[in-house]
Amino acid sequence: MATKTSKDIRSESRFMVLRTVYVRGTVTRAQVSAETGLSPATVTTLVGELVEEGVLREAGRISSQGGRPTSTFQANPARGALLAVDVAETYVRVDLFDASLVRVDQERVDLAPGTQSIATIAERIGVCITVILARHPELEGEVLGAGISLPGQVDPARGVDVFAPNWDWHEVPLMEELEKAVPVPVRIDNPLMALATGELWFGAGRRFRHFVAVNLGTGVGAGIIVDGQLLRGPGNSAGEWGHTTLVWGGRACRCGRSGCVEAYVGVEGIRATVAEIDPEHELLAVPHHRDFVERLMRAEAAGDPTAREALLRTGDYLAAAVGNLVNLLNPEHVSVLGWITRYAGWELQERVRERIAQECLPGPSAALSIEFTEADGEGVSLGMAVLALEGFLERVGLPSPSSPPTPVVPAAGRGPRTGWAVPQREG
Amino acid sequence: MATKTSKDIRSESRFMVLRTVYVRGTVTRAQVSAETGLSPATVTTLVGELVEEGVLREAGRISSQGGRPTSTFQANPARGALLAVDVAETYVRVDLFDASLVRVDQERVDLAPGTQSIATIAERIGVCITVILARHPELEGEVLGAGISLPGQVDPARGVDVFAPNWDWHEVPLMEELEKAVPVPVRIDNPLMALATGELWFGAGRRFRHFVAVNLGTGVGAGIIVDGQLLRGPGNSAGEWGHTTLVWGGRACRCGRSGCVEAYVGVEGIRATVAEIDPEHELLAVPHHRDFVERLMRAEAAGDPTAREALLRTGDYLAAAVGNLVNLLNPEHVSVLGWITRYAGWELQERVRERIAQECLPGPSAALSIEFTEADGEGVSLGMAVLALEGFLERVGLPSPSSPPTPVVPAAGRGPRTGWAVPQREG
Ligand SMILES: [Zn+2]
Ligand SMILES: [Zn+2]
Repeated sequence: MATKTSKDIRSESRFMVLRTVYVRGTVTRAQVSAETGLSPATVTTLVGELVEEGVLREAGRISSQGGRPTSTFQANPARGALLAVDVAETYVRVDLFDASLVRVDQERVDLAPGTQSIATIAERIGVCITVILARHPELEGEVLGAGISLPGQVDPARGVDVFAPNWDWHEVPLMEELEKAVPVPVRIDNPLMALATGELWFGAGRRFRHFVAVNLGTGVGAGIIVDGQLLRGPGNSAGEWGHTTLVWGGRACRCGRSGCVEAYVGVEGIRATVAEIDPEHELLAVPHHRDFVERLMRAEAAGDPTAREALLRTGDYLAAAVGNLVNLLNPEHVSVLGWITRYAGWELQERVRERIAQECLPGPSAALSIEFTEADGEGVSLGMAVLALEGFLERVGLPSPSSPPTPVVPAAGRGPRTGWAVPQREG
Repeated sequence: MATKTSKDIRSESRFMVLRTVYVRGTVTRAQVSAETGLSPATVTTLVGELVEEGVLREAGRISSQGGRPTSTFQANPARGALLAVDVAETYVRVDLFDASLVRVDQERVDLAPGTQSIATIAERIGVCITVILARHPELEGEVLGAGISLPGQVDPARGVDVFAPNWDWHEVPLMEELEKAVPVPVRIDNPLMALATGELWFGAGRRFRHFVAVNLGTGVGAGIIVDGQLLRGPGNSAGEWGHTTLVWGGRACRCGRSGCVEAYVGVEGIRATVAEIDPEHELLAVPHHRDFVERLMRAEAAGDPTAREALLRTGDYLAAAVGNLVNLLNPEHVSVLGWITRYAGWELQERVRERIAQECLPGPSAALSIEFTEADGEGVSLGMAVLALEGFLERVGLPSPSSPPTPVVPAAGRGPRTGWAVPQREG
């Protein structure tokens, strides 16, 4: 059986210490111990290492109950900077964060519509980074790493984009071009994992250990947090809630299946719903996704019955699809994020609120809360900055595992079994 | 933020040690360390505790590489016995296991059709236990505990059955009646969690850390194993895959929703599919669930086109619903279990095998295996025996946490948020 290595466990402890510091601002060792459940001795060791690495710094001393002063610690903003890159279908944006994860600068270029090559993407990223770093000569040699979010199914372990339907990418190798264009160590991921990481560190993760971060945008997905850890799966593709069947035999989805959640609650899904209600509606002529949603909301506010009906139906689909997550995963909480919530969050929330109890079993919904966040557009960047920081910490702070995991011969099950590996789809 | 307590972590380490012993039979400390990833010192401590508690015993000595003999350990079958109780809609069955989890005896009574009270159920369990223990006077005082599986959504923490639709149970308190009828400590759970626990210890859990155990029967569910741990959720109701929407606006489900997976791949779902193809089909007159499935398979083998078509459609629904799990969770493996597989496993597997690649995204299906198990009917009992053993180990072996978890004041998120608790459905 595969096992949790001591590296994983040590990394998790560091994560808990660091997150406590980033979330609380200034902490004592005792506070870290109380919040993380780690022993005082472990906290002392980990805080000591992080101070030595320059990630944390001693902030001062406060008197404790017994009267003896105790040290406080905080993130060290002078310790380098982090780059977060958000590659979307229509733009590349680079954000510069200081080491305490405050954004200090931003640079962005648009992408032409249509398919892109990784060479072009890497070149645009490189240009943005050059421009932004030229504005900050004091950071020469101080950037700890870059976290790059790319669309589709990104597998960081193999360094490939497995599948990005809008660009027709299949198994595209990423690292060679990215490492050529970016002057610091690169960590890649997809926007869903980035958004969920941001929510884990700075959002619902501060209050819940079992929750789901739903992303509503052009693409749709669900970051699943189990026991305080983001569920990635062996191929980093967990969370493809957008491509689970909601409507058997329903609308064709861009992934090749039919009836997927994304084809109903993603922006193209909302557009299809409008078209079903009124195929001649003028909104259907609006090509840009954000313009479409923004104008849909204006039409709804102005009393347009098609817009109103489309929003209600979208809310109904969303309630059922969120109900699926709730029944399957029994989370404590669901955060609904993503750019669509910025425009339609309030209206969708109202409808989901009306419908959700009917979509959930009594058990899973007993202690559930749901929260729609009007995303400020920083979620993906913030998450990628966190992932870049984690990459840095792994490089500098963690020893290599002393030996590879022991291979284990599979043992026979109790009872007859047959199985097979799933054949791969063509294309 | 809520945190993992040292109790959880210690319990997980014991679990890993014990499972290694139960799976391997006879082990050295070095083998346990290699398989679990725990340090040799931790393994020495845990094995020592388990030997002291009588759960393990020293089995002998073998010479190690350096020539110095090293001890081997195994489960101690003389250390007590365990009762596993499977309460189904039509029967109560009690299995007696020795402490090395080998079944040694069984007793069963039928339940009359219709709603049951917990008092009746408890009385039947008590009768079976009295009968079985009368046959084993040598076990006087030696039974370590009883694991009782009850239908529906069981919440062990509160000791209630939250929802069991077939008996119209809502928030039924269980423990008083059960503890009155059962002479040993009781641990309760539902069949899905029991089945998944058995699969975790003795099935796919020996080879995979991320997998799903699908249960196909009268009820339908999916035990989700993340990083070697069964996902339960705060209300112990994770895994209600049977009550996720597959067919928006589809068949009414006994849970009150429409279009649920269970209404298509559970036994009542298969019956509804037969009725859709041929409302006059003679199979529809067969009342008992197992008889129905058994006769359906005989009809299919004899060339009945309705039976054939019903099986194909069921396979199509199952492939889409399993595809949903794969895309959402990116497991390494899916085990399909449950009594339906005993009759129709081969035929359903054939159809799922044909369809699954179309239902999965390229990433999540890349390294996926799927296995249909012809269940031997012992899965629930074996799982409940394991859970009873775990309960015993917790009672005797684990210190109480020294203090309750620190309450944390929720911190404000970054950006405006609104949220609400889900209102509860009536009835
Ligand atoms: Zn899709
Ligand atoms: Zn249902």
